Amino acid sequence: MVTLSPEGLRSLGIKIFMAQGASDIDAKLLSDTLVEANLTGHDSHGVHYFIHYTDRIRNGWIKPKAQPEIFEETESHAVLDGKWAFGQVTAKKAIDLCIEKAKKNIVAAVGAKRCNHIGRVGYYTQYAARKGMIAIIFVNVNHPIASVYNGLDRRFGTNPFSLSVPTNNDTPYLLDYATSVVAHGKASIARAKDEKIPKSWARDRYGRVTEDPEVLWDGGWLLPFGGYKGYALQLAMELLGGILTGSFTGFDEDIEHPSTNGLLTICIDPDGFIGLDAFKEKTEGMFKYIKSTEPTNGNNILIPGEPEKLSKEKLLSEGIKLPEDTWRQIIDLASELDIDPSIALKR
Amino acid sequence: MVTLSPEGLRSLGIKIFMAQGASDIDAKLLSDTLVEANLTGHDSHGVHYFIHYTDRIRNGWIKPKAQPEIFEETESHAVLDGKWAFGQVTAKKAIDLCIEKAKKNIVAAVGAKRCNHIGRVGYYTQYAARKGMIAIIFVNVNHPIASVYNGLDRRFGTNPFSLSVPTNNDTPYLLDYATSVVAHGKASIARAKDEKIPKSWARDRYGRVTEDPEVLWDGGWLLPFGGYKGYALQLAMELLGGILTGSFTGFDEDIEHPSTNGLLTICIDPDGFIGLDAFKEKTEGMFKYIKSTEPTNGNNILIPGEPEKLSKEKLLSEGIKLPEDTWRQIIDLASELDIDPSIALKR
Repeated sequence: MVTLSPEGLRSLGIKIFMAQGASDIDAKLLSDTLVEANLTGHDSHGVHYFIHYTDRIRNGWIKPKAQPEIFEETESHAVLDGKWAFGQVTAKKAIDLCIEKAKKNIVAAVGAKRCNHIGRVGYYTQYAARKGMIAIIFVNVNHPIASVYNGLDRRFGTNPFSLSVPTNNDTPYLLDYATSVVAHGKASIARAKDEKIPKSWARDRYGRVTEDPEVLWDGGWLLPFGGYKGYALQLAMELLGGILTGSFTGFDEDIEHPSTNGLLTICIDPDGFIGLDAFKEKTEGMFKYIKSTEPTNGNNILIPGEPEKLSKEKLLSEGIKLPEDTWRQIIDLASELDIDPSIALKR
Repeated sequence: MVTLSPEGLRSLGIKIFMAQGASDIDAKLLSDTLVEANLTGHDSHGVHYFIHYTDRIRNGWIKPKAQPEIFEETESHAVLDGKWAFGQVTAKKAIDLCIEKAKKNIVAAVGAKRCNHIGRVGYYTQYAARKGMIAIIFVNVNHPIASVYNGLDRRFGTNPFSLSVPTNNDTPYLLDYATSVVAHGKASIARAKDEKIPKSWARDRYGRVTEDPEVLWDGGWLLPFGGYKGYALQLAMELLGGILTGSFTGFDEDIEHPSTNGLLTICIDPDGFIGLDAFKEKTEGMFKYIKSTEPTNGNNILIPGEPEKLSKEKLLSEGIKLPEDTWRQIIDLASELDIDPSIALKR
């Protein structure tokens, strides 16, 4: 593993995306979402996308200079046409618009279509929560890799769901997860590290139980989390993130864009209800009540979002570790673009 | 088991609630939600509540003549004060108001506090879906019976979540479930039938694995579904259904009302997005795609909501079966209120 500086990686990412036509604002956002994913412990959504996004730019799937446009709009809702800009740019515009509308109307919903991969969804819900909003995002992924409950074969993407709320202090609340047992990227990482995966994650192309992540590159699939309950949520992402917004869905065929996202953001202003201050105060009390619980043997009681917070605190001082392979590919890419990759090394 | 007529049970329920002061409209709604729960296979939320609601009326917890009032309101949102009316009456008013506001504003959110037990949550989301709305309801239950992830002891209620969308034909889509592994009532039914429960459902008061539903009446608890993912959703119900709306939460103590609900309803009009007809058409296509999947050995591929539909079709012709004990208690209650319970018997 190579140890890298979060700040340095961020600067490197900005240079890489600007060299390919992104504006400084867009490049900063992109790089920030990817580095933040590594920092919060979600390497699956991290800076290895410097490479994948570059591939997608070169294939014409991501248009680095494109900007999302408002396709349809009222006081309380909008639909964006992402114009195949960077997915992060579209998602950020969607959540910003949703926050603005919810501040005026208490509740708002903004969807987006023709949207590329937006990265880690929790980035946007937590961003809204820090601005005093309750935020919910439904996302579908047009890349079938997960089966349906009781079904063989790949049917839907990992279809992530996220929900975040404002809190009084730095105690986070962040629901942010794939509706498959794990994100696809978690299996990629196990594969890169030559590690086994738990039997509850995947099936091989014949539907057999397996511990080998390799099956996911050979016709196998991930299972939905939590049996039929997770399956219903997996499908909700498809219906609200995908169909409602006019985005591609898991069953659209002949789509050349890989891993496009459809998304629906909902923001709610607590000031229309109990009030922001009271909401934060009561939430803090509830988290204390939860944390006072005696844990089962050898475990800790954590608030959703706390693992991410703890990871970030640790990695901000220790640096981000990347597999040699991934770092080598980033070096190659940087060199090709005439950028010095060593700015990302941890000193 | 005693076999009863759905229509007869509905009439009996109306008489029982009217005899205790409910208006005919409210009694009809109440009876309909409870009978519908039995029909859809959710006996846990069924007509045994004729008895429990009567107890709550007699304790002053349910006020049969009370009506919810609008406590706060804008074009796109409202908060209801349930005034401790029947929970069903409050939930119905909330969803009706939310539908009305979403028809004008594309998206709306309506919450309710001081709300009694609303019954099966899917009743309201599916009602909204039949009116062309996408409906989401977050509910908390002020009756700690489920642990948090990795925690010992009871912390939160079974905190149900529901989401339904309009469909083109009678193929339903209904996400409607407790965020604990199962609803409390499923364990009550296993207990009444003297059956074992799966090891994944509950822990005894010492945190030990068990197959005995009795532990839930002796300090034991239900687990959240799907590990940390279900736990995050369990907590979302508490935050949005409970805290945001100013309702009691799992950690409020010294509350005399048992099993109160806090709820937040969100409606979205597909006409602000892809349009209702296109939404229904694409949804139908997606369901066909799912149903065409080859099932794992011995299983069926079902759309969420389909088990409820199949159960209803079956029980509408076969009748609803109640345990002798439950039916005996309903007979006693009816007799006390000078109502002939035999109108509910299947002829």
